[in-house]
Amino acid sequence: MTEPLRLGIAGLGTVGVGVVRIIRKQAALLARRTGREIVISAVSARDAGKDRGINLAPFVWEQDAVALASRDDIDIFVELMGGSEGAAKDATEAAIAAGKHVVTANKALLAIHGQALAEAAEAKGLMIRFEAAVAGGIPVVKALSEGLAGNEITRVMGVMNGTCNYILTRMESEGAGYDTLFEEAGKLGYLEADPNLDVGGIDAGHKLAILSAIAFGTRVNFAGVELEGIQRIELEDIRQAADMGYRIKLLGLAQRSARGLEQRMQPCLVPTGSPLGQLTGGTNMVVIEGDAVEQIVLRGPGAGEGPTASAVVGDICDLARGLRMPVFGQPAAGLSQAPAARSGLPAPYYLRMALVDKPGALARIAAALGESGISIDRMRQYGHCEPTAPVLIVTHKTTREALDLALEAMAGTGVLASTPVALRIENL
Amino acid sequence: MTEPLRLGIAGLGTVGVGVVRIIRKQAALLARRTGREIVISAVSARDAGKDRGINLAPFVWEQDAVALASRDDIDIFVELMGGSEGAAKDATEAAIAAGKHVVTANKALLAIHGQALAEAAEAKGLMIRFEAAVAGGIPVVKALSEGLAGNEITRVMGVMNGTCNYILTRMESEGAGYDTLFEEAGKLGYLEADPNLDVGGIDAGHKLAILSAIAFGTRVNFAGVELEGIQRIELEDIRQAADMGYRIKLLGLAQRSARGLEQRMQPCLVPTGSPLGQLTGGTNMVVIEGDAVEQIVLRGPGAGEGPTASAVVGDICDLARGLRMPVFGQPAAGLSQAPAARSGLPAPYYLRMALVDKPGALARIAAALGESGISIDRMRQYGHCEPTAPVLIVTHKTTREALDLALEAMAGTGVLASTPVALRIENL
Repeated sequence: MTEPLRLGIAGLGTVGVGVVRIIRKQAALLARRTGREIVISAVSARDAGKDRGINLAPFVWEQDAVALASRDDIDIFVELMGGSEGAAKDATEAAIAAGKHVVTANKALLAIHGQALAEAAEAKGLMIRFEAAVAGGIPVVKALSEGLAGNEITRVMGVMNGTCNYILTRMESEGAGYDTLFEEAGKLGYLEADPNLDVGGIDAGHKLAILSAIAFGTRVNFAGVELEGIQRIELEDIRQAADMGYRIKLLGLAQRSARGLEQRMQPCLVPTGSPLGQLTGGTNMVVIEGDAVEQIVLRGPGAGEGPTASAVVGDICDLARGLRMPVFGQPAAGLSQAPAARSGLPAPYYLRMALVDKPGALARIAAALGESGISIDRMRQYGHCEPTAPVLIVTHKTTREALDLALEAMAGTGVLASTPVALRIENL
Repeated sequence: MTEPLRLGIAGLGTVGVGVVRIIRKQAALLARRTGREIVISAVSARDAGKDRGINLAPFVWEQDAVALASRDDIDIFVELMGGSEGAAKDATEAAIAAGKHVVTANKALLAIHGQALAEAAEAKGLMIRFEAAVAGGIPVVKALSEGLAGNEITRVMGVMNGTCNYILTRMESEGAGYDTLFEEAGKLGYLEADPNLDVGGIDAGHKLAILSAIAFGTRVNFAGVELEGIQRIELEDIRQAADMGYRIKLLGLAQRSARGLEQRMQPCLVPTGSPLGQLTGGTNMVVIEGDAVEQIVLRGPGAGEGPTASAVVGDICDLARGLRMPVFGQPAAGLSQAPAARSGLPAPYYLRMALVDKPGALARIAAALGESGISIDRMRQYGHCEPTAPVLIVTHKTTREALDLALEAMAGTGVLASTPVALRIENL
């Protein structure tokens, strides 16, 4: 048995409390599994007085996360504060400067500053581990960067935001509108402080950008993620999709081609019976495709105290066992900068729009599509809500570029009463 | 860049050839990912003259795997011969004696000799890695022993033999009988040299025993696996199950309770719409439940050149990166010996039998069940095939112990024309 491994934990919200609970409850098991005693030396959080339901008395309390990160009596800085800037960033940088390994659940921090942090850590022979930052309890970072290290990864896909999936699932099961369920999710504490992080697809986009870097050996490029939230999805879309045998999911996809790195996180129609289509509630799913392994699917809870803390403790165990590898699976300094590419692969699209209710309106829309080379699979006006007429169109396969041209042309017809909702149909 | 990592590969069947191909094709990628050049020094196989479609000329050829395992110019012995005894065992022991790490895809070897091999390796600070031994390309050993190391594992389940799942899937889709499809699987090369390893559930049982050891910190106990193959499943069972909304799968389950370690690998009825029920063809699925992570599901190809080689190369990369941990996730010498326990959890059972076609036969069977405290949910005679009458019974929840008593009592009635097929119904 070597020296104990000493943790400094910054952030005692749901996840932080979960980590303290596991380290305490499973002390003997963790020691058997890692060959080291794992102890918490010091903790830090915004509010020292708050009752968190756990005894923090044995730990040194640091009010300042930066001070915690630099303490001599910690080996690993566990960053569970969140946020890409401010204390989380400062403390992580301080930890690296002080020669500490970092374990974090912070996807925003890594999606924005991952490259710089990884270079700084690697220059000092330190690790940053972040299993909990992507897909909660699912060990997807480990599967991708270690288990599948023999593969050239060809594609990564997944549903990685439990809150969006919860809202979309409930819209279908309850027949309730987006606004109602958004409010409900807020009351249940499912939304981030800035709810746009969830429903705007940003949180899921951060996760996708991180997985892309590992998968393709490219620098994390969150700015290159084609991002679209679920705010414009209406109950009508859920129903129309269901009629056609589809469900709407906030789907992430990343793949590398000659054109560059394609990353998108946007609501799509997926077949109801497919594994992704069957994913309900807060569950996450990640699909990884590689040249040797073909396809691996990982499913599990995307959030919550236990699952997220499980991922954090898994990382701590790796460090306790002495694992050393580059942050993103290859040395950060050598990661390439792939240009962002829009999808070149054609797909059918679902379009919903309201037209001004006058003769010839539908014909103009059809013409705009035709002129962009897009064939219509089906098209129907499904009721009148004067003074506008709702219209649903399903196209044959087309590229996003062609569709964007068509949407521009449609906007120029003067018959659109609202911006169309355009959703890619992924027959996965 | 440190010294190259040198491999000696014994066994050049499908998987061995796949490993050579990946090491060669991805040389640059693997070097970036592991920080070391990975090279093949020497190979060994039964037939030196066979054309395997790859150039073996750059490698030293050793006719004898034991000699290969002890060569001075290898760091890792890659054992892809298979079989629990003979050359595979001798060479693995020789490798450990010579101070080499071992990477193997050999589930039989580990299920039978895992404890002794692990103790020998750990005594010398060596690793035995075996991701490819369980569920092909799915990184399940890694997920369980590393990613979920913070969890007390409560249950492991899964479908882990592609051949059985292929046969059962085709029985349903083709309406063909077991014998026909068994023959077809043989012609397609899907069956092990001893087909009983597949259809008898032994291969899947080996895998379950290995996962149990990691999950529960117990010594590998293959002898303790309650084992039942799929040989007695008839088309009629597939149809009756389908009518009831179920599919038959060769399902493994391991859990630890106060009674001991329960491990079973047997055909069960699972709901058609469940993730396990939807698993068709050669795909494998493993479900892991832990106190913190709740439930993780992993799905992927359970066999084949690419997926299995992917798992082998993943292990090699771990060693190249310097990973060191106990073979089964905790020091082998400290693994406990849990007594084998039969399932205490009651479940409904599906029973199919042929009765001698005489008055009162059914009543006697019903009485035998009743006397063992088993209630009948439904019971029907579904056609006459004189001189016997086929009967289907679905019980209410009962324990396996009670069912075994009832089966004994039924045998004593003298009205059974065949031994009943009894399948547990798992409403997972």
